[in-house]
Amino acid sequence: MPSDLAQLVTSLAQRARAASLVLATATTARKDAALIRLAGLIDTSHAALLAANAQDLASPEAAALTPASRDRLTLTPARLQHLAESVRAVATLPDPVGDVLEDFTRPNGLHLRKVRVPIGVIGIIYEARPNVTIDCAILCLKSGNACILRGGKECFQTNTALAALITQALAETGLPADAVQLVPTTDRAALTTLLKLDTLIHCIIPRGGESLIRYVAENSTIPVIKHYQGVCFVYVDAAADLAMAEKITVNAKASRPSACNAAEQLLVHRHVAEQFLPAVARALLAKKVELRCDAASAAIFAREKIPHTAAAAADFTTEFLDYVIAIRVVDSLEAAIATINRDSSNHSDAIVTADASTARCFLSQVDSATVYWNASTRFTDGFEFGYGAEIGISTDRLHARGPMGLRELCTHKFIIEGTGQVRE
Amino acid sequence: MPSDLAQLVTSLAQRARAASLVLATATTARKDAALIRLAGLIDTSHAALLAANAQDLASPEAAALTPASRDRLTLTPARLQHLAESVRAVATLPDPVGDVLEDFTRPNGLHLRKVRVPIGVIGIIYEARPNVTIDCAILCLKSGNACILRGGKECFQTNTALAALITQALAETGLPADAVQLVPTTDRAALTTLLKLDTLIHCIIPRGGESLIRYVAENSTIPVIKHYQGVCFVYVDAAADLAMAEKITVNAKASRPSACNAAEQLLVHRHVAEQFLPAVARALLAKKVELRCDAASAAIFAREKIPHTAAAAADFTTEFLDYVIAIRVVDSLEAAIATINRDSSNHSDAIVTADASTARCFLSQVDSATVYWNASTRFTDGFEFGYGAEIGISTDRLHARGPMGLRELCTHKFIIEGTGQVRE
Repeated sequence: MPSDLAQLVTSLAQRARAASLVLATATTARKDAALIRLAGLIDTSHAALLAANAQDLASPEAAALTPASRDRLTLTPARLQHLAESVRAVATLPDPVGDVLEDFTRPNGLHLRKVRVPIGVIGIIYEARPNVTIDCAILCLKSGNACILRGGKECFQTNTALAALITQALAETGLPADAVQLVPTTDRAALTTLLKLDTLIHCIIPRGGESLIRYVAENSTIPVIKHYQGVCFVYVDAAADLAMAEKITVNAKASRPSACNAAEQLLVHRHVAEQFLPAVARALLAKKVELRCDAASAAIFAREKIPHTAAAAADFTTEFLDYVIAIRVVDSLEAAIATINRDSSNHSDAIVTADASTARCFLSQVDSATVYWNASTRFTDGFEFGYGAEIGISTDRLHARGPMGLRELCTHKFIIEGTGQVRE
Repeated sequence: MPSDLAQLVTSLAQRARAASLVLATATTARKDAALIRLAGLIDTSHAALLAANAQDLASPEAAALTPASRDRLTLTPARLQHLAESVRAVATLPDPVGDVLEDFTRPNGLHLRKVRVPIGVIGIIYEARPNVTIDCAILCLKSGNACILRGGKECFQTNTALAALITQALAETGLPADAVQLVPTTDRAALTTLLKLDTLIHCIIPRGGESLIRYVAENSTIPVIKHYQGVCFVYVDAAADLAMAEKITVNAKASRPSACNAAEQLLVHRHVAEQFLPAVARALLAKKVELRCDAASAAIFAREKIPHTAAAAADFTTEFLDYVIAIRVVDSLEAAIATINRDSSNHSDAIVTADASTARCFLSQVDSATVYWNASTRFTDGFEFGYGAEIGISTDRLHARGPMGLRELCTHKFIIEGTGQVRE
């Protein structure tokens, strides 16, 4: 790659690191003031932001987007108003920095405190979504982290306009302008360089499709917190309340199929399959959900003349993100647990049952980030958990697992006070 | 690489994953029974273990080791006895699995619990140290994790003999023998394959020199918790008790120079440099510590005829791991903090001062995992922190930062109980 590009990215990361040291000890009041100022700037900059967004939407890159992606790229006055409101909402959240996590004194008199502190410099790698630019910037700012934003090329003009407002808000409230920086190029080589700057950047969060996340994971020497797919299961047990099971299945699948916490897979105990499957199938079909079936469920649907297709093997491990569900009949709780531990993505999996000991077995043995008893998988979400914010849903097991709010953007340090202690 | 080697490693990881699901819900009593049995097997297997170790020591690979590395490879009856004792000690520690970290009910009635659970499958990559084989196996076992051990080729026979005892102890107590597996080859290609098995292995912990850690970090698509170097600082402030400062400096440097928490760098405020430096220099020289000095400290030592050398630029960021210390005079607290944030490895850094507000400023602004006021950096250690065990000292900021005990070998899951809740 051209050495000037490498130099550009390195210099940007060095400035982020310097800014992070200032931001780490900034007061809550000052950080909140910058957020409030940013919200105000968004409110008064609709014309400039919409003009930048129109430039992006007219670009050849945007023309290649799917309708759904193009919609996510598009800003409107209403969406800008909502964006400003979300910035104000983060200003009202408690500051996680400084929380004392542990406080104890050792027999030798050393006083240890484990205190929550910002991670440092966080790199966010994402696609053509301008709201991610603001979301990530404000959550990093509130949690005292400097961030480096690298969005998709389809969104470059919009991101540049948004980043200018952030810089202005930071400068006007006396915080380092380098605390939030947009990588000023969408050259892939710049990203690859960025992912190796492990002495300056402490964490990478990729947000986007699987190929983006895989590229980042394979090329980064910086620790990555991944947000992979959700292949989520609903298991309807022999002892389920079937009306509840139907309501949960339909909600988990069809309330928002594009979400990672939507169900993709339905397992039904064979004792209730004859009774439950026709009912749930009709409810799903009413929501235009396609049913991809194993032999046992297909046989029931054939008899009942319910439209369905035969599942291919891959359907049983697929994140459809669409109005499609794969259905299997299982012989036992143990079979359901084994199937989920083998085929799910360990994201969010639910059991519907009225039997408490069956539920406890499922909740304990299913090895997923979030396990539900008699509730929809769709609740896996930072807001639904009461975090007040969400930077994503980690599918990793280290550091953060499940919804990530402000606290998950922090690490800790040990502060140890002594009176001259030395080690024997 | 030969496909049979890839198959061998993949099959081993698959068996580890299956074992991890069983181990995750194993009772504390059963895990502790396996540990006690292992300790007994070590006690009664001295002859076999020493014979395997003698084979390793006689190998051409061992002949190439430094005397210090060769010493760490060597087992003796006393060391085996100590190893068995350390296994029994882990059996007495509290089991971290199942701890409820949060417990709350949302307005919609959903009851959420955040519960500590094992990470799953952990890969440990290390060098020619048979004690690491046992240490890591027992800490993973106690915390409910399956582990895959890949030790140095110089240690292969010893590790194989130790692994056989672990397998026997697991099997005899009804735990899956695959919960602890040694990679049965030291072929580098097997390691590279292992580091890509990110659907089966959840965490990699490399323990060893910088080149090993860098190789692992650059080749792994599995999250890595690094244990890099410690370039630790002691800063002696203008308001320091100089007798305390001398005692702390000598302890931090010379009590065990090969440890990552040993001090490598001394900063002295110019107001006390004339008085403090000759005294601490004589104390360090009495411990055979070489002094590598900046111009200001060198001038003082020259006047006092104290032996010293001029530091090269690299000395100020070097982890000597030896009886060497680099010395600089600084003009202010701010200069000391900036120097540490630039040149340290953010591991363990100490201030000696009698001024509380100076200390608070240092503790807050120095961006290191462990910061000390009036105590030696040598206390950064899982045992000294009261963890009862240590698998290493993380120099990363994600998941674990600083000493890692049993709790740091765990993640969490969310267990959510409802009464039929669905999302609007």
